[in-house]
Amino acid sequence: MTTRRHLLAGGAAVAGLGVAGGAAVVATTGRESVPATAAALTTGTATVPFHGPRQAGVAEDPPAHAAFVAFTLPAGTDRRALARMMRLLTDDVARLTQGVPALGDTDAPLAVLPARLTVTFGFGPGLYRAAGLRPPVADLPKFRIDRLESRWSGGDLLLQICADDPLTVAHTQRMLIKDTRPFAAVRWVQQGFRRSPGVQAPEHTQRNLLGQLDGTANPRGAEIEPVVWNPDGSTTLVVRRIRAEIETWDKLAVTDKENAVGRRLESGAPLSGTKEHDEPDFAQLDESGLPAMPDFSHVTRARVTDPKLKILRRPYNYDGAPNAAGHPDSGLIFASYQRSITEQYLPIQQRLADKDLLNEWITPIGSAVFAVPPGCSPGGWIGEQVLT
Amino acid sequence: MTTRRHLLAGGAAVAGLGVAGGAAVVATTGRESVPATAAALTTGTATVPFHGPRQAGVAEDPPAHAAFVAFTLPAGTDRRALARMMRLLTDDVARLTQGVPALGDTDAPLAVLPARLTVTFGFGPGLYRAAGLRPPVADLPKFRIDRLESRWSGGDLLLQICADDPLTVAHTQRMLIKDTRPFAAVRWVQQGFRRSPGVQAPEHTQRNLLGQLDGTANPRGAEIEPVVWNPDGSTTLVVRRIRAEIETWDKLAVTDKENAVGRRLESGAPLSGTKEHDEPDFAQLDESGLPAMPDFSHVTRARVTDPKLKILRRPYNYDGAPNAAGHPDSGLIFASYQRSITEQYLPIQQRLADKDLLNEWITPIGSAVFAVPPGCSPGGWIGEQVLT
Repeated sequence: MTTRRHLLAGGAAVAGLGVAGGAAVVATTGRESVPATAAALTTGTATVPFHGPRQAGVAEDPPAHAAFVAFTLPAGTDRRALARMMRLLTDDVARLTQGVPALGDTDAPLAVLPARLTVTFGFGPGLYRAAGLRPPVADLPKFRIDRLESRWSGGDLLLQICADDPLTVAHTQRMLIKDTRPFAAVRWVQQGFRRSPGVQAPEHTQRNLLGQLDGTANPRGAEIEPVVWNPDGSTTLVVRRIRAEIETWDKLAVTDKENAVGRRLESGAPLSGTKEHDEPDFAQLDESGLPAMPDFSHVTRARVTDPKLKILRRPYNYDGAPNAAGHPDSGLIFASYQRSITEQYLPIQQRLADKDLLNEWITPIGSAVFAVPPGCSPGGWIGEQVLT
Repeated sequence: MTTRRHLLAGGAAVAGLGVAGGAAVVATTGRESVPATAAALTTGTATVPFHGPRQAGVAEDPPAHAAFVAFTLPAGTDRRALARMMRLLTDDVARLTQGVPALGDTDAPLAVLPARLTVTFGFGPGLYRAAGLRPPVADLPKFRIDRLESRWSGGDLLLQICADDPLTVAHTQRMLIKDTRPFAAVRWVQQGFRRSPGVQAPEHTQRNLLGQLDGTANPRGAEIEPVVWNPDGSTTLVVRRIRAEIETWDKLAVTDKENAVGRRLESGAPLSGTKEHDEPDFAQLDESGLPAMPDFSHVTRARVTDPKLKILRRPYNYDGAPNAAGHPDSGLIFASYQRSITEQYLPIQQRLADKDLLNEWITPIGSAVFAVPPGCSPGGWIGEQVLT
């Protein structure tokens, strides 16, 4: 099913790519050189449409910067308060994503370069309970590998704020937290990054801080539709904070790293193949008669044969301050979208938790689940199907 | 004096601008549309030369992302240990800035997109004392407005790591901290950002998180030379962490904000003029007979009449996690380069500390000073003039 959101967002994703640089820049295109002008600085002015049957910020190529902001509702919050909050936040986001200051924006000049800004709303189990409704999502079971910290876990409301510019993310975060303040307390904020605009083509898989290409097996283009979207325009989101144990990872030889992942570090090719997007061949044997794809490699354990049961990963790197001994605080804000957490995310995560060579070098320290309600039309608001 | 470094860096600054986007991108240049190719993705591959009589990372247009990493030397550090450390770090930086993995780089695939990476070394007073030398820089006096925290202050060695890509900054920070570990402990890390590549032309002044254009009065082009560089290629660096009191700033009317700064928020024009780069006219009176530029506005207090006594500001925004009540932890990593802290930075800072309307909304919480030694030739190392 191709929806208006899909078409609009697809168009915007193309418009969102652009030419960087100032008057002195020359774009070399084969044989001719074209001086670029200030008008070509489209990274900042690019917009993703807000209104549509599905929320933005899911299927588009992920922008370079993100802030995931989770809130806790105070006791006594009722459905009417939630509706007031969501009307206000929807109005803010409808403006800010189009480069228009929010009503009462106290730093309006920071609103004019949206840089593909999207804000995606997720509702945690607690929001449904506050509204007197049965939650459509439930906290994940505890996995053997989890070392969850409450400061990175849970949340009644989530704002996923993404843009190609970090100042835009900071301003949007500030305005939306201000307007949420009468209704909810900040529970956690996770800020993350991918490659800057213009560093890699959007279709290129990005590397995480362990040096791995991360997202090769993601559905692309038309494959996204059956993985992510329910018929009503809703989806679900899992956010996991995964610490990278870079200190011990650094001690591994390249071949040991590649065996743990199941892919070559340099090319991202599966160990059974030669190119990043070669389909892994789990039957292939290497010269010693062992499976080319190790049984317990990350790729082997995570593989999904039914394309509809894949998940759409939309991860961001995080890099906090190291401690005095120089040990890093780095890792991945793993974010995945799927129709159903139970049917799609959980079986994969369970297999990985049970046995995945990579587990020795990654530690989940945060976990949260959200239902992502459908988008809305002009005049409507996000959550109206749930809360009215 | 035009040096090789200057010429090289100038060329690289132009080379560092580039065309963003993938195969689908179209650069509109007046009447014709030119499809850009993946080969045009030059933001990631752009390099700034490392070798030269002056260090890089000072006079070039600041890249989008920075990490300022300060170290403390253990007791007993001597000149020979310092020389070993600086030889090692110089070798790392000479490679990484050119897109080549460091020797023993454990995540080599992360090194290949330098994105205008520069690493600038600063020596704090303690490094000179460890080497048995008289420090050429001294900690700043305590100003009335300071609320300094030790976790953001001081440092014997500074690495200023700048690049247009946050993953490049993270990888470089990681590698350099690893190699510094045998010699020094991490004292503090401050990570900051400016607009993403392609969002604004490099000659545009950037906004800070208070919404102000920040850096309008900075020396440009040939004006930088006499402000920053000593004849031997050295300079000095002041790093101040300045918290923005956004909560109270938000409560001001726009005109009150403009009076505190002395410039229009929207355009950055001085209150005596109409365009950002109009020279402020401190003699002009407004319709009520008062000075158009308020006596105690930030711009009035910061003004420097002798161009040689200006400073070169190279600030980055920071935005930490807000607290549960949603109060932000945001502000500016103020970094300024000048030949002499005593002759250039201190008089300005003293005037601002004594009386500046803006002081009510900004609080210095960190402070550090560094001598920035000259650059080096291939085969040489940063600090060789000081430590041998």
